[in-house]
Amino acid sequence: MSLKLYYAPGACSFVPHAALELAGADFEPVLVKLHKGEHQTPEFRALNPRGQVPVLVDGDTPVTQIVAICLHLDARFPQAGLLPAQGMARTRALETLLWMNNTVHPTFTHVFMPAKFADEAEAQAAVKARALGQYRQLLGELEALVAAKPGAWLGGAQPGVLDAYALTLLRWGGFAGIDPTTLPQTWALSQAFAALPAVARVIERERLQLNVYRPVAA
Amino acid sequence: MSLKLYYAPGACSFVPHAALELAGADFEPVLVKLHKGEHQTPEFRALNPRGQVPVLVDGDTPVTQIVAICLHLDARFPQAGLLPAQGMARTRALETLLWMNNTVHPTFTHVFMPAKFADEAEAQAAVKARALGQYRQLLGELEALVAAKPGAWLGGAQPGVLDAYALTLLRWGGFAGIDPTTLPQTWALSQAFAALPAVARVIERERLQLNVYRPVAA
Repeated sequence: MSLKLYYAPGACSFVPHAALELAGADFEPVLVKLHKGEHQTPEFRALNPRGQVPVLVDGDTPVTQIVAICLHLDARFPQAGLLPAQGMARTRALETLLWMNNTVHPTFTHVFMPAKFADEAEAQAAVKARALGQYRQLLGELEALVAAKPGAWLGGAQPGVLDAYALTLLRWGGFAGIDPTTLPQTWALSQAFAALPAVARVIERERLQLNVYRPVAA
Repeated sequence: MSLKLYYAPGACSFVPHAALELAGADFEPVLVKLHKGEHQTPEFRALNPRGQVPVLVDGDTPVTQIVAICLHLDARFPQAGLLPAQGMARTRALETLLWMNNTVHPTFTHVFMPAKFADEAEAQAAVKARALGQYRQLLGELEALVAAKPGAWLGGAQPGVLDAYALTLLRWGGFAGIDPTTLPQTWALSQAFAALPAVARVIERERLQLNVYRPVAA
């Protein structure tokens, strides 16, 4: 069965994109240009009515939601070790994956797209300010998780989806004025992950700069 | 290995609470009184530093994050069919579970606790107003999912975690002035789910009223 991944450079689609390369999957990467509104075309909405990347198309079936895609790929490529295979190691990894997805990720959305959460400019500024402080704190929590990781990687002995998500969340911090080098454990993990040949292919295809930090005026 | 579930009545901990009863698990339910701040005690923070319910304690190990707990219970009680066992049916169910967890659930948090997202009262009111409109729309999406469900239940032939989450999200709508009977498919599903003997035990233990709707002044 054929696999296609619809992705946008630097978006959270980086996570399944890295997972596919780590698994050695034969897949077709499809670039979706968000700035050209390609996620809002009828063709794309037929795949995902919510108009979001990533979408994985497995055979004829579109799958949305990063975590669902990662679990789907983990079941399809069990030898890749994208997540720990079983037991409490797996549960612990899922716990972190879910927290990244339902807490850290949406906090960044409040920083980056505050207009999604309030109508007026003043309220949007208030939402952004609050979320930025929270995002710094959450990256601090991530740094502690990385420091306590159970092996060379966040999931243990093998690189996987947790490392891909950590890299993405740290990278986004750069856009919010958070210097990644101030989170040395997560920065070292992200650099090591980016240097893996499979991941380097994704970074090249998405044309990503790992450190996008620029100071933001207070 | 012993199982304990820390829950708060009517909170999202209802989802693993129902899962444990559906699985016929031998577990100890532990009531956490949020209004008395019992989630902020040193004892509770030792289990979950984030101070949130639910927490499942399996043996000596605390597990947080609803979806991680559900996946843990699904692996521990495979015969219960809390989620479809495999293939695209499982992936589709996970996609819905993740959407409930990272989109519908946090939208309600913006309605219910806008003070988490902005400092000033005016900005909080703006956040709440925007989220309420979104929540109505998301419950409409849920209604369409229920209408298209693959069997008697959201996961197919067996009742499971998706039905428990749907009931929770619809019930919360009542607090936000959304009459559950205006979403007839989801309301019928929730009533049927609540009537299952295993779920009825949870509803009695949590002392839940299924329909909490009261009109809210505009």
